[in-house]
Amino acid sequence: MADFASIDRYLDDHLEQSLAELTRYAAQPSVAAQNLGMEECARLVSEMLRARGFSVELVPAEGYPVVIAERDGERDKTLLIYNHYDVQPPEPIDLWTSPPFTPTRRDGRLFGRGVSDDKGHLTARLLAIDALLEQAGRLPCRIKFVIEGEEEIGSVHLPGFVRKNRARLRGDACLWEFGYVDHREVPLQYAGLRGICYVELSVECLSRDVHSGVGGSIFPNAAWRLTWALASLKGKDERIRIPGFYDPVRPPTPRDRELMAQAPDMAQDYRERYGVKEYLRGMKGGEELKIAEVFEPTCTICGLDSGYQGPGSKTVLPARASAKVDFRLVPDMTPDQVTKQLRAHLDAGGFADVKIQFLGGNPAGRTDPDHPFLRLVAETARPVYGMPMTIVPMVGGSGPNHAFIQELGVPVATAGFGNPDTRAHAPDENLRVDLYLKHAKHVARMIHAFAEAT
Amino acid sequence: MADFASIDRYLDDHLEQSLAELTRYAAQPSVAAQNLGMEECARLVSEMLRARGFSVELVPAEGYPVVIAERDGERDKTLLIYNHYDVQPPEPIDLWTSPPFTPTRRDGRLFGRGVSDDKGHLTARLLAIDALLEQAGRLPCRIKFVIEGEEEIGSVHLPGFVRKNRARLRGDACLWEFGYVDHREVPLQYAGLRGICYVELSVECLSRDVHSGVGGSIFPNAAWRLTWALASLKGKDERIRIPGFYDPVRPPTPRDRELMAQAPDMAQDYRERYGVKEYLRGMKGGEELKIAEVFEPTCTICGLDSGYQGPGSKTVLPARASAKVDFRLVPDMTPDQVTKQLRAHLDAGGFADVKIQFLGGNPAGRTDPDHPFLRLVAETARPVYGMPMTIVPMVGGSGPNHAFIQELGVPVATAGFGNPDTRAHAPDENLRVDLYLKHAKHVARMIHAFAEAT
Repeated sequence: MADFASIDRYLDDHLEQSLAELTRYAAQPSVAAQNLGMEECARLVSEMLRARGFSVELVPAEGYPVVIAERDGERDKTLLIYNHYDVQPPEPIDLWTSPPFTPTRRDGRLFGRGVSDDKGHLTARLLAIDALLEQAGRLPCRIKFVIEGEEEIGSVHLPGFVRKNRARLRGDACLWEFGYVDHREVPLQYAGLRGICYVELSVECLSRDVHSGVGGSIFPNAAWRLTWALASLKGKDERIRIPGFYDPVRPPTPRDRELMAQAPDMAQDYRERYGVKEYLRGMKGGEELKIAEVFEPTCTICGLDSGYQGPGSKTVLPARASAKVDFRLVPDMTPDQVTKQLRAHLDAGGFADVKIQFLGGNPAGRTDPDHPFLRLVAETARPVYGMPMTIVPMVGGSGPNHAFIQELGVPVATAGFGNPDTRAHAPDENLRVDLYLKHAKHVARMIHAFAEAT
Repeated sequence: MADFASIDRYLDDHLEQSLAELTRYAAQPSVAAQNLGMEECARLVSEMLRARGFSVELVPAEGYPVVIAERDGERDKTLLIYNHYDVQPPEPIDLWTSPPFTPTRRDGRLFGRGVSDDKGHLTARLLAIDALLEQAGRLPCRIKFVIEGEEEIGSVHLPGFVRKNRARLRGDACLWEFGYVDHREVPLQYAGLRGICYVELSVECLSRDVHSGVGGSIFPNAAWRLTWALASLKGKDERIRIPGFYDPVRPPTPRDRELMAQAPDMAQDYRERYGVKEYLRGMKGGEELKIAEVFEPTCTICGLDSGYQGPGSKTVLPARASAKVDFRLVPDMTPDQVTKQLRAHLDAGGFADVKIQFLGGNPAGRTDPDHPFLRLVAETARPVYGMPMTIVPMVGGSGPNHAFIQELGVPVATAGFGNPDTRAHAPDENLRVDLYLKHAKHVARMIHAFAEAT
């Protein structure tokens, strides 16, 4: 039996050291979308793991390399831990209070791109591992890290990588990269993630921009073509109009609904946090909103780009226009299905000129919310948070958990220190130092309990 | 009778000096839309005119100051010359072969923002005036320059300025700021300009960007709202759907059609120059295309801006979205009519959340294409170009000629050195040096003929 009083003391005493390690890690830009600092960051992660006695391999993959690290432990059981070393683009940079790649402490938080999503999750877990090693000289069980560099661009190559390295990645359970504590300070565990299909739609009608006085009434306009093509995908009623899109969608089960009823009602919190005046389709909150948030597929315009966007006016007819569009998928939709249906829909609507560039995606992945491993992870939170984690069957975000569940056959549990104001993907991304420490304490207990479970 | 052989010799001899003056003038950025270098440029223009013995006043106006310059001549007749010292924004800067504000000579052309539109038109006219003064010691008639700083942002304040300064701006005829020689080297004279109404449409649904996994199925999305609002303005059939929009539109007269038949057929040229694959509504060229280009009102998206536009993907639900939209107006539409109809249409369509910012505009302005002054301007081109100008009743572009025609009661003639590859408003804007010299020779003759006409 581990001495958690002594482990917790170690974690308290080494918190600042761990945050210093995170500060170095987050100061290294690693924006996959912009190919910024990726190699350097992968090497940095490798060194951090090697320093803990892991055997580390930086495995070249089709895209950015994957870091695989392994260290044996007392029991012959393997806990997989999935993290990623890439981060979202820092833009818009002028909305950051402190520079995105200069991690900065303020008001009990650490601010910086990636500190929460999810570089800090790696360093907090390494802190827990340090404590376990310090106490016993070895790990309670085998731990394998899989740390990819393409999570923020849809983990394009990870499913193939997992399939190809199935034997090597064999394990008994998997701890996912992130997790949240809700606005009531209740730790949440998500048993499933929606899938994603991210595309760029682009149109080019002319070889160059033209004075709008010349072309306005006679030349095709790429911005108009894009506008009409987009408007054909989804109407004001929010119904996605791509034929067949909703066919694979299954409604939540009674058990899903039961668990969702226990999930937090975010309606008021979202109003305050994001300035939401009205929810879509007249929803007010409660179960309806909770279910819609995670059990429905989406079609979101993430960006629009065409012509002149500076101050004042420029009378130009743009040659090109493009949109970033993100589809969130529920079981059993696939990115392949969506891109094929999208192509067919655009073609049928007279938009064969609108190009689709697939920028990444994966299907939704679910673990049974009543799986013993998820229960174990939920229960080991109790001594740290004063309550077990609340298990939520599905979360709105995405990740390549499908590959682990399908290819490796492992249950996947989420746990982490994200807070309701953590601003992942947005300016002023941050972590709360108190929750960071709690996560480390939780992870130390979870590893122990996993190793000892029969 | 003037000695045009000697005048032409002067112009030939002083061409380089004039281009050097233009190079200094165009090196001074003066981007009205970005409030860049405006005061400096207005002062520079004033000095250039004072150096020619003009009495110059830099008149403060509601927006950027207007330069008024006047010099008496032999006859008591007044030729107004309208120019502007502001230029279009230089963006996208990376598409320029040489820097936009470093005028550069290549292949018989001078490249730089504003060299054609329309700083060079001022310096070429000053060169003609230098020649006339050199020969006779005085001008053949009174010349009044009106040089504004807001042409490229819709001449927002010029109509009011002209109305207010009606007495001071009294004249008998007006030479407009620009003109073109077509792809057959035929000089064109435009007897009318379309009007314009330039607006920015913007939507803000949230106080900040949100992770698209959270908000995709429950939060309103500004980019979607904008897309649907835009799609409600014009459909794939190119018909503008704003109720009442087309009500004031009059078809071209039989005389308009007769003159348009003589205008150049640009169908093939546009295909090559701008990469047009198909004209709108199946048009192939000929009279149909010529008429559509200038006698129809338009609704052009000039720019789209929302969310993430960088490389790769960013899974964000944008808080804001905006579009620049330019309506070209035919007689008797007005910007006021269009903005009111647009507001009513958006409100009726459920888009009260879409804000309209008016960025400038003016109604269309026409002079009778058979007016004697226009004939005079056309005929005085003959000795220079080997043919008279072809008079075209209307051009697709815009400008505040309506104010001169309505408030001052003068005919307005266009003449200039623009070439089919002049790239006004676009990267690599340029002038052809040979046409620049021809314009100076034409202007010298036109001023003389105007002074002497009964």
